Amino acid sequence: MKHPFRTQGGVLQIGGVDLRRLVARAGRTPFYVYDRSLIDARIRSLRETLPPDVELHYSIKANPMPAIVHHLASRLDGFDVASAGEMMLALDAGTSPERIGLAGPGKSHDELRRAVAAGVVIHVESATQLHLVTALGLELGIRPCVAIRVNPDFKIGKGGMRMGGGAAPFGVDASQVPALLRDLTRQEVAFAGFHVFWGSQCLHAPTIVQAHRQSAELVMRLADSLEAPPAFINLGGGFGIPYFAGENPLDLHAVGDAMCDWLPDLQRRLPGTRVVLELGRYLVGEAGVYVCRVVDRKVSRGETFLVTDGGLHHHLAASGNFGQVLRRNYPVLIANRLDDPAQERCHVVGCLCTPLDRIADGAHLPAASIGDLVVVLQSGAYGRSASPTDFLTHPPPVEMVV
Amino acid sequence: MKHPFRTQGGVLQIGGVDLRRLVARAGRTPFYVYDRSLIDARIRSLRETLPPDVELHYSIKANPMPAIVHHLASRLDGFDVASAGEMMLALDAGTSPERIGLAGPGKSHDELRRAVAAGVVIHVESATQLHLVTALGLELGIRPCVAIRVNPDFKIGKGGMRMGGGAAPFGVDASQVPALLRDLTRQEVAFAGFHVFWGSQCLHAPTIVQAHRQSAELVMRLADSLEAPPAFINLGGGFGIPYFAGENPLDLHAVGDAMCDWLPDLQRRLPGTRVVLELGRYLVGEAGVYVCRVVDRKVSRGETFLVTDGGLHHHLAASGNFGQVLRRNYPVLIANRLDDPAQERCHVVGCLCTPLDRIADGAHLPAASIGDLVVVLQSGAYGRSASPTDFLTHPPPVEMVV
Repeated sequence: MKHPFRTQGGVLQIGGVDLRRLVARAGRTPFYVYDRSLIDARIRSLRETLPPDVELHYSIKANPMPAIVHHLASRLDGFDVASAGEMMLALDAGTSPERIGLAGPGKSHDELRRAVAAGVVIHVESATQLHLVTALGLELGIRPCVAIRVNPDFKIGKGGMRMGGGAAPFGVDASQVPALLRDLTRQEVAFAGFHVFWGSQCLHAPTIVQAHRQSAELVMRLADSLEAPPAFINLGGGFGIPYFAGENPLDLHAVGDAMCDWLPDLQRRLPGTRVVLELGRYLVGEAGVYVCRVVDRKVSRGETFLVTDGGLHHHLAASGNFGQVLRRNYPVLIANRLDDPAQERCHVVGCLCTPLDRIADGAHLPAASIGDLVVVLQSGAYGRSASPTDFLTHPPPVEMVV
Repeated sequence: MKHPFRTQGGVLQIGGVDLRRLVARAGRTPFYVYDRSLIDARIRSLRETLPPDVELHYSIKANPMPAIVHHLASRLDGFDVASAGEMMLALDAGTSPERIGLAGPGKSHDELRRAVAAGVVIHVESATQLHLVTALGLELGIRPCVAIRVNPDFKIGKGGMRMGGGAAPFGVDASQVPALLRDLTRQEVAFAGFHVFWGSQCLHAPTIVQAHRQSAELVMRLADSLEAPPAFINLGGGFGIPYFAGENPLDLHAVGDAMCDWLPDLQRRLPGTRVVLELGRYLVGEAGVYVCRVVDRKVSRGETFLVTDGGLHHHLAASGNFGQVLRRNYPVLIANRLDDPAQERCHVVGCLCTPLDRIADGAHLPAASIGDLVVVLQSGAYGRSASPTDFLTHPPPVEMVV
C-alpha cells in the first residue's frame, strides 16, 4: 500500500517521529495520530491547483479534535459546522462568526437559538427553520444571518455518495427556493448566500466538475431574482480519498482546470460573490492513522488471526459498519515490520466479543508477533468521532497531532 | 406493530408513566427509557420456563447502564463481562467476583491484571492468555480462577449470528482444548469451567435446542479428562428478539422443554456442575425504547420526510449501520398519536448531515406534526452504548429507568 509517511529501519514515522516513540508518548495503544505537515501539504496543493479566489472551509464533522480545528483555523477561510457543539469548537478557535456556516436538516430550537446568539451564518433548510430563526432573532434582538441550503435539481453521476438530486431531507428543493427567497425578504433576517451540497467521497474528477458546473448554473439562476449578488455561494465538498484496492486519488488538476473555465462567468454575473468549497475528509483523512497492538496470535481451523487491542469501538468505518454495503479492508500495515516481505495471509481483528469486529480479512502481511504495531491508514477523518467508543466499556483511544 | 407497553388516550406509557411526562422528566429529547417491570417479567418467564437448576447471567455488553446492572444484580445469578470496564460495573453492583466471568479474544495485559486482582473468573481464549494470567497471579500472589472458552466444533444452522464452528478469533478450537487443559493443570491457576458461545440473536428455537445439545455433548466430552466435574459450564446466550417485519418471538417453551430432556444426563455425568446461560439482548432489548421528537416536516420531490432531533449518533443499529447487510426498519411509532390511523407514507430521518441517518424508510404512520414524539421500539439493547455519540458533536441521549 502506498502511503505518504516516511519509514526508517522498517518502522513507520508519523510527522518525522518513530512510531514506537509515539506509542511511548501516548502512554498506551490504541491511538489516533494526525500528521499536521500532511494537512498543510494538502492545503498547499489545493491553493496551488484551484483558482486563487476560491475559499476553502473545513467541515468539522470529518474530525472535530480541537487541536485539528485550531490548526486549520489559521490556514483556511472558515468552517462549516453541523451542530451547536461544532459551532463552539469553531468559535473557540478564534474564527469570526460570519466565517462559520451551520447546516443540518434537524437543527433544534436550542441549537438555532445558540447560533443566532453567536451570529454565525445559518444555512436554513426549510421554511420552518427560516421562521424559527426569525422569531429567535426578534427574541434576542439580533438580525440573524441566513443562507439557503439548496437540494439541487441534478443528480451526480458516477462515484461517491449522492446527497442531492432526489427526494432528500437536506436543504430546500431547488424548485421551492424562489418562494422561500420571497418569504425571506419579508423576514427580519440578512441573506448571505446559497449552499449546494451534491455529494460526498467522490474520486471521479469529471463527476465533481459536472456537479460544480451544474451547481454554479443553479445558483446563478436562483440569484436572478435577488436585488444584489449574494455574499457567498458554497458548492459543498465531496472530494474523496482512496480507501480500497483499485481506487485512485482524485485528479485535483482536472477539477481546478474546470473551475478556471466557469468561475469567470460566475464572477461576471455575480460580482463580489465569494465561492466557497467545504472540505473535510479530503483535508485530514489521509493525514491520520489508527494504531493498535497485536495482543494475541492464534490459529483456528487453519486460519491465522492477529488479535489486537483495537477495534470497531474506536474505528467503526474500518470494520465496514459505517455506510458500506460490501465490507472491504482499509489499508493496514504491520508498522514495525515494513521491510519484511508480506509472507502470510491472516485476519486482523479487534478485541471485542463480536464477529463484527474485523480490521482486515485475509490480508497479506509480514508475519507479525504479539507486541507488533498494526496501523490502519486513511483514518484521519470519520474515525474516532464516528465510532461507538462506549461499546463494551473499553477506554477510548488517545488522539494526538504531530 | 405489537408492543408490550400500555397506551392511554393514544399516548404510549412506559412503566405506567405517560410518555409526555417522561419527556418533561428527562428535560429534553432524545432519550432512552427502560421499563424495569418488563425486564422483571422477562426474568420471570425464563425462570418459569427453563429448568430451575439453570443459572442466568446478564451479558453487560447489551446495555451497561449502571442502573440496569444494579437492577439485575439482585435478580440474576451473575454477570458476563467483556472488558475491565464492564467488570467494574458488575463489582460495583455488589456481585461476588466468582459470579463474574470475563470473556474477550483480545484481553490486554492491563485488563487481565485487573481481573486477576479482582478475583473474577477469567475465560481464557488462548494459551497466550493462560500463561499471562498465570504470570500475573504469581506477580500478585493470587491464584487466578480460569475457565476455557471453547470455539465449538459445530456450526449452528438457521438464523442468528454465528460465533462458532468455523475459524474464529473467539475461544480455543475444541480440538485444541485437551492440550490446553493439560497445560492448565501445570499452571498455578484454579480451573472453573467451560464457556461455549455458538451464536447470537437467534429466533429459531430448534437451532438453539440443537446448539445446546451439541454444546452439552462437547463439554461432557472435554470434561472426560478432568479429575472432577467443572464448577460450571456456560452455554452462551443467543436468544433473539424480533426486530423486523415477519420476525416472530422465540419459542422459549421449546427451548425449555428440550433442556429438560438433556439436562438430567449432563447432571448425572457432571454432578454438581452449574449450568449457566448468559443473556443480554433477550433480557433488556424489548424493555427499552428510544424517544425523539419531530423538528421538521418537509416534502421533497413528492416524498414526505419527518426530520427528528434523534439519529444514528444515538441509535446506530436503528439506522441499519451495525451488522446489517440489508437495511430494514426498526419498529417505529408516533407515540402521541397511537389512536390515529396510519394514513401516510413517510421517511423518518435523524438530524445529522448524512444520508446514512435514517430511522425508517417508507414507513406507514399517522400524519405527524412538528413536536410529535417518535419512538423506536426494541431499543433496550445495543442502543446508546453501541452508537457513535460524539459524531457531529451533538449532546448524548439521556437514559432513564422507570
